[in-house]
Amino acid sequence: MSKPFQRIAVIGKHHTTPLHETLSLLIRHLQDWHCEFTLETETATEAGFSSLPTQSLEEISQACDLVITIGGDGNLLRTARQLCHTSIALIGINKGQLGYLTDIHPEALMSLKDILRGEYSSEERFLLRSHVFRGEDQLFSQIALNDVVLSPGEIAQMIEFELYIDGNFVYRQRSDGLIISTPTGSTAYSLSAGGPILHPGINAIVLTPMLPHTLTSRPIVVSAESAIDIYLSEANRTQARLNHDGQEQFSLQVGDRIHLEKFEKPIRLVHPKTYNYFHALQSKLHWNQQPIFTDR
Amino acid sequence: MSKPFQRIAVIGKHHTTPLHETLSLLIRHLQDWHCEFTLETETATEAGFSSLPTQSLEEISQACDLVITIGGDGNLLRTARQLCHTSIALIGINKGQLGYLTDIHPEALMSLKDILRGEYSSEERFLLRSHVFRGEDQLFSQIALNDVVLSPGEIAQMIEFELYIDGNFVYRQRSDGLIISTPTGSTAYSLSAGGPILHPGINAIVLTPMLPHTLTSRPIVVSAESAIDIYLSEANRTQARLNHDGQEQFSLQVGDRIHLEKFEKPIRLVHPKTYNYFHALQSKLHWNQQPIFTDR
Amino acid sequence: MSKPFQRIAVIGKHHTTPLHETLSLLIRHLQDWHCEFTLETETATEAGFSSLPTQSLEEISQACDLVITIGGDGNLLRTARQLCHTSIALIGINKGQLGYLTDIHPEALMSLKDILRGEYSSEERFLLRSHVFRGEDQLFSQIALNDVVLSPGEIAQMIEFELYIDGNFVYRQRSDGLIISTPTGSTAYSLSAGGPILHPGINAIVLTPMLPHTLTSRPIVVSAESAIDIYLSEANRTQARLNHDGQEQFSLQVGDRIHLEKFEKPIRLVHPKTYNYFHALQSKLHWNQQPIFTDR
Amino acid sequence: MSKPFQRIAVIGKHHTTPLHETLSLLIRHLQDWHCEFTLETETATEAGFSSLPTQSLEEISQACDLVITIGGDGNLLRTARQLCHTSIALIGINKGQLGYLTDIHPEALMSLKDILRGEYSSEERFLLRSHVFRGEDQLFSQIALNDVVLSPGEIAQMIEFELYIDGNFVYRQRSDGLIISTPTGSTAYSLSAGGPILHPGINAIVLTPMLPHTLTSRPIVVSAESAIDIYLSEANRTQARLNHDGQEQFSLQVGDRIHLEKFEKPIRLVHPKTYNYFHALQSKLHWNQQPIFTDR
Repeated sequence: MSKPFQRIAVIGKHHTTPLHETLSLLIRHLQDWHCEFTLETETATEAGFSSLPTQSLEEISQACDLVITIGGDGNLLRTARQLCHTSIALIGINKGQLGYLTDIHPEALMSLKDILRGEYSSEERFLLRSHVFRGEDQLFSQIALNDVVLSPGEIAQMIEFELYIDGNFVYRQRSDGLIISTPTGSTAYSLSAGGPILHPGINAIVLTPMLPHTLTSRPIVVSAESAIDIYLSEANRTQARLNHDGQEQFSLQVGDRIHLEKFEKPIRLVHPKTYNYFHALQSKLHWNQQPIFTDR
Repeated sequence: MSKPFQRIAVIGKHHTTPLHETLSLLIRHLQDWHCEFTLETETATEAGFSSLPTQSLEEISQACDLVITIGGDGNLLRTARQLCHTSIALIGINKGQLGYLTDIHPEALMSLKDILRGEYSSEERFLLRSHVFRGEDQLFSQIALNDVVLSPGEIAQMIEFELYIDGNFVYRQRSDGLIISTPTGSTAYSLSAGGPILHPGINAIVLTPMLPHTLTSRPIVVSAESAIDIYLSEANRTQARLNHDGQEQFSLQVGDRIHLEKFEKPIRLVHPKTYNYFHALQSKLHWNQQPIFTDR
Repeated sequence: MSKPFQRIAVIGKHHTTPLHETLSLLIRHLQDWHCEFTLETETATEAGFSSLPTQSLEEISQACDLVITIGGDGNLLRTARQLCHTSIALIGINKGQLGYLTDIHPEALMSLKDILRGEYSSEERFLLRSHVFRGEDQLFSQIALNDVVLSPGEIAQMIEFELYIDGNFVYRQRSDGLIISTPTGSTAYSLSAGGPILHPGINAIVLTPMLPHTLTSRPIVVSAESAIDIYLSEANRTQARLNHDGQEQFSLQVGDRIHLEKFEKPIRLVHPKTYNYFHALQSKLHWNQQPIFTDR
Repeated sequence: MSKPFQRIAVIGKHHTTPLHETLSLLIRHLQDWHCEFTLETETATEAGFSSLPTQSLEEISQACDLVITIGGDGNLLRTARQLCHTSIALIGINKGQLGYLTDIHPEALMSLKDILRGEYSSEERFLLRSHVFRGEDQLFSQIALNDVVLSPGEIAQMIEFELYIDGNFVYRQRSDGLIISTPTGSTAYSLSAGGPILHPGINAIVLTPMLPHTLTSRPIVVSAESAIDIYLSEANRTQARLNHDGQEQFSLQVGDRIHLEKFEKPIRLVHPKTYNYFHALQSKLHWNQQPIFTDR
């Protein structure tokens, strides 16, 4: 039995149609269970629940101990980045197809009652932090829970860069880009690019090249404590961009240096007691299915 | 409207439990439809239908114009090889998961009535023929509809061989083996090894390396009219083996030459009018499913 | 002995530093051999050879029977597209690393003498033609010798589209894009994306998905006679773009249809008698090298 | 400055032609440097150095603090397994192509002098231990530094098994086998099968499927502290085998359980001060080469 949650905040995905319905259901349950809860201000406005108590993200980060997000993995990713400086626990409710991070379906909201009471498991997931330097100046910094992606800018089709790990030169690569992924992100974009699945218990990062011109370029898994530096080669004719969880972008210039490291504070994900990481994999990757070719 | 089928033979997979049931159903239908049909001798014996007219494979090959196989793709592959010298058309009934080749489910047996009357589409599929030479002597020859696979023998873990196409040296390769696949086989073993899907209308063969030690080794698609020669290098410490459709094996020795070419006569597959190659792909490869990661 | 070449045109890559040197050498040889030749107008101006006879591309296409390009594969690709309506033969001289298409090094210019006399081999390579439709209107059409690439526009990170082959629905895909490649282009961008190598003698096209979200999406090889249609799904939030040989771009909008088909006229590539397609593969893909792991 | 080495043993690969030459050179150097050394008994006999002091592996494991292996990675792998219960440091001299583990070329033997004096870097590499259970009985146990490989036995072409990690069911898989690799082995067989490169500093294991029938099966990286259990399914028609570093084999039967865990004691690899892991990768994977396709 873990510590029950005392003050709960609810954050909904912007502009998602079924938000109102799921939110109504959730609110009714929270009221039935006599929980103290608050709605994030914009969520309340959008969904038309202005009569209920609301708080800004800033206030939530100081007052609450659990945030329930409504919507897909994207919503939980955004909330995790926004609250990365706090110790708030996170859990996601997803009406559509279950995600890797959002594991409670609205029809299974009753399981939330047990979670609020302290019947849950929780785990820490680390985040990445990027810093972009132009000459001596740091121009930009951002957080990512899934991945940081270096890719070509507007017109370019490929980029050229140099990769250093802990100050060691690794390779100069021409490719469509590089995905630097946490274990959490290893089942997302990196997987499409041929990267391995990293169990969330691993303290490691995977660097997955996208369509590399050199066929021997392969995903490399390094310690999450590594310092990763990427130099945008002068050979690039055009800009590149740096993307965080597919949501936060920055435009890079030739000569920029990107420094990546583990963010000092992990987020905490809360799951129902029945949660099992491998069940999520099986379901998302359809591992329970018939093989593609029948027995000879 | 194509030519109706006049004399039908039925061949069932050896030792498959639900054979009797599907066969009974099929026989009842064929009798209802007043079709002239015969059972392959061993099929009849195994399934306990000895009172019905039976014929050997040899007799079937001379007397019939359509063979209905019962069982998975493996059964149709075997039958196709056995009848490769004839012009008999083939169709497969599969109780389990539908295969790429066996596309009629027992519950859809009524569609067979239309097929027998001439309401069908048909297509030709080419086969490969292997010849194994030791010195001047040809030791072995076999047919394959899906693929010919060169792989290590009993104890070995890898093999080394040289590949020639139309007399041109292509590469010397160390690997777990080489899959030489027709378009028909391109959705089977070759696909697992990273090979492309070849539409059956393509007159081409794909050579797919299995776990090659050189990372730049890639599947190569060449004309089906090519002469393919593989020399088992003297560097091999042990035997290798040559497999045809995963069913017919031959033990190779160091120094052997394998010659592969298109077999002169294609087989003819019959399909219901509703058949569509891409539907089969979508169903087998689960292309209609949700993507693995949710929208950000 | 093939037909000797009578009127030769020379086209150099724009803004390539070593152009002047290679061009001087080539011109001296052509003069020594008493060949009738002309410089493409812009090439002559750029390289400072204005005293020599020059012709526009338009004039060259009517008057010459062989075009020698100086520079990398990119230059030959551009020239091939520009002269695709003619029957002129093409050969490439490349000072840097030899390409797949440009196979004469300046130091081996003597081999050109034999080629001009008729001692050469030649082969045809087909091109793709794209047409973009918005509603009923055709907005754009372009030619490609290597590949046509559908990819996300400025800000987007992925696109969603539907693929049809000869009117048959193949799949709805979310990915970073789709590469439609000729055999000539199969060793370029498509190879980076996991596509197979297609021998130039194959009359086929390969459709290679880029980082598909569905892990069962695989390269498909279809007949070059196929009609390929791609519909940009309404689900896309932003623009996409269509690229030809990495050189000619068009901005697409949601709802656009891209139609692709084989261009009616192939180009003709000329090679020294010693040319061998597999030698080029071996050299470019480093197949002659040591395997990555040593014998156990 | 690390601790100098006091008592050195030399172990040569069995039946390697250039052993005598490299060994002579090494012995002359060791004598010049006034080092106390011993030859492994069989090595001395094979190479004809019977007049020099010799010791059995057992004696070496108790008396020496550094073992120099002569030959490829395979020789170092074998020695590492044989001495896994000791704390002896290992270094490899390799006359042929340098391996991942054997990083001193005979021509660079002078660098050994510095190493013996204490001018070296060293690192620990963990090993895997397998246990095979049939019912209640443990039948077999073995060590591996690179990888443990489950693959089909003599006639079979594929196997079916169930994988559990820390007691959690992961998947039931039909494939050509499964490679369970340490970071050390991640650049060997696992890489050929599409596995990622794991930096040796990572405390993780990668499970790489070989030609899986389900296309969504992907390499998974789990903590090296995980308990891995594999059950050979009853669906297998034939035997399977378990291989350790490609050198030690065991024949499995249907129903067997394979348990894998990290071995309690790591080995210690010694390198010249100039050693850099990424240099080895660059050299072995040819990352310094020209990309496969030229700039457009």
